[in-house]
Amino acid sequence: MVLRPPREMGALEAARAIEAGTLTSEALVRSCLERIEARDGALHAFTAVDAQAALRAARAADAGPRRGLLHGLPFAAKDLIDTAELPTAYGSPIYRGHRPRADAACVALAGEQGAVLLGKVATSEFATQTPGATRNPLDLDRTPGGSSSGSAAAVADHMVAVAFGTQTTGSIIRPASYCGIVGYKPTAGLISPAGVKALSPSQDTVGLLAREVADAAFFAFGLHGHAVALACDAPLRIAVCSSRQWAHASAAMVEAVERCALALERAGARLQRIELAPELEVVFELQPAIVAFEARQALAFERLHAAGALSERLSARLAFGAQISPQEYLSMRQAVERARERFAEQFAQFDALLYPAADGEAEVGLDASGSPRFGALWTVLHLPCVCFPAARGPSGLPLGVQMVGRLGDDLRVLAAAEAARRALGDAARPEAAHAA
Amino acid sequence: MVLRPPREMGALEAARAIEAGTLTSEALVRSCLERIEARDGALHAFTAVDAQAALRAARAADAGPRRGLLHGLPFAAKDLIDTAELPTAYGSPIYRGHRPRADAACVALAGEQGAVLLGKVATSEFATQTPGATRNPLDLDRTPGGSSSGSAAAVADHMVAVAFGTQTTGSIIRPASYCGIVGYKPTAGLISPAGVKALSPSQDTVGLLAREVADAAFFAFGLHGHAVALACDAPLRIAVCSSRQWAHASAAMVEAVERCALALERAGARLQRIELAPELEVVFELQPAIVAFEARQALAFERLHAAGALSERLSARLAFGAQISPQEYLSMRQAVERARERFAEQFAQFDALLYPAADGEAEVGLDASGSPRFGALWTVLHLPCVCFPAARGPSGLPLGVQMVGRLGDDLRVLAAAEAARRALGDAARPEAAHAA
Repeated sequence: MVLRPPREMGALEAARAIEAGTLTSEALVRSCLERIEARDGALHAFTAVDAQAALRAARAADAGPRRGLLHGLPFAAKDLIDTAELPTAYGSPIYRGHRPRADAACVALAGEQGAVLLGKVATSEFATQTPGATRNPLDLDRTPGGSSSGSAAAVADHMVAVAFGTQTTGSIIRPASYCGIVGYKPTAGLISPAGVKALSPSQDTVGLLAREVADAAFFAFGLHGHAVALACDAPLRIAVCSSRQWAHASAAMVEAVERCALALERAGARLQRIELAPELEVVFELQPAIVAFEARQALAFERLHAAGALSERLSARLAFGAQISPQEYLSMRQAVERARERFAEQFAQFDALLYPAADGEAEVGLDASGSPRFGALWTVLHLPCVCFPAARGPSGLPLGVQMVGRLGDDLRVLAAAEAARRALGDAARPEAAHAA
Repeated sequence: MVLRPPREMGALEAARAIEAGTLTSEALVRSCLERIEARDGALHAFTAVDAQAALRAARAADAGPRRGLLHGLPFAAKDLIDTAELPTAYGSPIYRGHRPRADAACVALAGEQGAVLLGKVATSEFATQTPGATRNPLDLDRTPGGSSSGSAAAVADHMVAVAFGTQTTGSIIRPASYCGIVGYKPTAGLISPAGVKALSPSQDTVGLLAREVADAAFFAFGLHGHAVALACDAPLRIAVCSSRQWAHASAAMVEAVERCALALERAGARLQRIELAPELEVVFELQPAIVAFEARQALAFERLHAAGALSERLSARLAFGAQISPQEYLSMRQAVERARERFAEQFAQFDALLYPAADGEAEVGLDASGSPRFGALWTVLHLPCVCFPAARGPSGLPLGVQMVGRLGDDLRVLAAAEAARRALGDAARPEAAHAA
C-alpha cells in the first residue's frame, strides 16, 4: 500500500475515514495547508487562509462530539461568499479587507455539519469577467476559467477536496472543465444564495467544485444533514442536445461530447440526438442583457461611489445595462418564462441532456477567462448541471462535458453524470497531468 | 385655495412641483420631518432618521443640477434594506446598530435619480411574523400588518409619499390593505433584491408602498430613469379569481372584491368568474414549507450564533424548516414550476385577476400582524401585484383588493389597478379617516 497524503482523498472518502477514526481532521487540514504552502505562491488560488484558526477548528472537531455529516472536512469558499472570520473582497479593490458581519448561508450550514473553513479562494471581479491572479494548475500559463477560478484551481491542485463556487452564466461549469474537475450547479436555491454578493439575482446560483461527482453530491446534500445515493434504476435516456452555440465549440469539444455519448450508450443508456427548440435558442441572445440589467442595479452603490475602482470591462458592461429599459427587461423575463415551459416540454422524455461545458481547452493567458456561454441557458432556467472531464484536447488539457436535467431533478442528473464518468473510465481523468 | 402641507402631495405631484420650481426639496423634506416629529412617538414607523443629513441632501438637490426623475423626492426604506448611512437592524436585536458597508441596490438607484433618503422604517423580525412596535395610523390599537409595517404606516400617515417594502409571502400587499394605501409588488427582479437581507431568496421581492397607483409606478420605473404612462387602450379583461383561500376572507372582504369587480364592469371592463386550477391550489400548502426551508438556510448564521436572540415564533419556524429534506424541497420547486405553466395557461385570456389582499380589516392588537396567505401564490410565481383600497369594513377600516397579472406585465397590471381605483371613486379612500 502506497501512502497517499490525506489531501488526495475525496470528501466522501475523507468523511468516512474521519468517522472510522482512521484519519483525523487535523491531519487532513495539515495536509491541505502543506499543499497550499508549497503551491499557492505559483497558483494564487487562495485570497485568505488562517492556518492556525483552521487547525484549531480541526482539533476541536477531533476532540469534540460528531457534529454532522461533514464532520472535520475542510472546505474553501469563493471570495464572493461572506465569511465573518476571514476577509471577503468580492474580487474587487473596493472591498479590500472587508469583514462581513455574518457568514453566508452555505458557510454557516457547512459549519453546522462540522466542516472546517480552510480559506477563501479567488473570484474574478464581482464574479464578472475580469479575472484575478489565479493560474490553471494543469498549465500555469493558462486561465483556470472564471469566475470561480480559485475554487476550481484549489480543488484541481488537491489543496482541498471541495470548494463552494457560484454561477451566474458559466462560472462553475467552465472552470471545472478547464481544470479537469467536477462542477455541480444545483437547482437554484438548493444551496442558498444568502450572503453571496449579488450580481444577477434572478440567476446567481451557489454550487460546488470537487474532484468526484459523488463528493459534490455528498457535500451539497450533506449541508442539509442528508446522505444521498447516486443510483440509476432504469437505462438512462440521454439527449445529445445541439444548438447554434455549438458553432463556438472546438472540434475536440464536439468529439468529447460524442465520446461521452457513445460511452454511455455502450453502458446501456438510450441516446437521442435533439435540436434545441427556437424558444430556447432565443435565450442565448437575451441572457447577457438580463445579466447586464440586473448587474447595473446590483452594483449601483459601487458604480456610484467607487466607479474608478471598477475595471473598464465591468464599467462597459454596466453601461450596456443602462441601455436596457425596464420594459425591455420585463419582456426578456417573459421570453425566459416561455423558454422554461418549452424546456419542460422538449425534455420531458429524457433523464438528462449532454452539452459542451466550454468552447474548448483552457486558453493561454491570464487576462481573460474564456467564454461562459455554454452555461447561460441552463443558469437562467435554474436547471441542475454537472460538469465532468470527458476527454483531453489537442494540448493534452481536459475538456468537460455537462449533464443538464430538469428543475429539481438534481439526484438524477448527478447519477447520470456519475454513470458517464464510470463509462468513460480513467482515461478522461486529468489528475495525472497536473504538475505535482 | 387651501394650503396643504407639501407632504400631502403624492410622489408624482411633488416631482412635478420640484421640477417646475414651485416646491423645494427642502420644504418637502421639512414637512415630512415635521410629521414624523409630531406623530412617530405614537406610531413607531421609523427606526432611524437623520434629519440633518436629509435636510442637507435636500438643500444639495435644490442647489445642484437635476440628477434624475426622482430629483429631490424623499423616500423611506424598510429596515430589511441595507443603507450605508443609516443603521440597519433587520428588525432583530442581533443587528442593533449594524452599519452595512454599502447601500442596497434600490437605495443606490433612488439616490442616482436624485431622491433623498428620509429614514429607515420598521420591519418585523427578519421580515417574518414577529412584529416590531409600529401601530396602524388609522387605529393605533391595531396592527399595520407586516412585514413592511413601517413602510405602510409611514406612507399612510403622510410622513413620506413612497417607501420601499419587501414581500416574501404577503408583506407588501397586506400592510397596504390594512393601512388603506397602495402596495406594488413588481415582477421579481424589476427592483433588485441586492442588499436586502435574505429570507427566502426564491421569493424575496422588493416593491413600493405609496398612496397612489401612479406614484408607485412612477417611482419603480423612475428608479431606472424611465417615465411611464398608465393607459388601457382596449376594454380590460378581468378574472375574478376564487380559490379555497377565499374561505379565510371575511364577508366584507368578499364584498369588497365584488364591489371592485362591478365598478370595473360599469366602467367597461369584461368580467369573468374563474376558479383557480388545482395545480395552483396545491401551492398554498407548499409555499410556507418553501419559505421555511429557505429561511433555515438564509438565517443559519443567526440560528447558530445568536439563537437566544431569535423570537420563539421564528425559532419554531426554522425548526419546521429542518423537517423538510432537500429532496422534498426540490419536489416542491417542481410543483411550483407546474403551477407557473398552469397560470400562464389559465390566465392567458385576461389582463389581470382580482383577488383579496388580506383576510379582512387590520386586526386589533400588536403582537401579531395578520395572515400573509393571500400573497403566497403570486409571490412564489414572481407575478406583479398591486393592492389598492376598495371598500371599508365593519369597523370603518380599509379593505384592499389586489390586481395580479402575468409575469412581466407590470404596466398592464398597474393600469388595471389605476382603472379600478378610478372606477371605485373616492369613497374607498381611507385617508379622511386617519387621525390627523
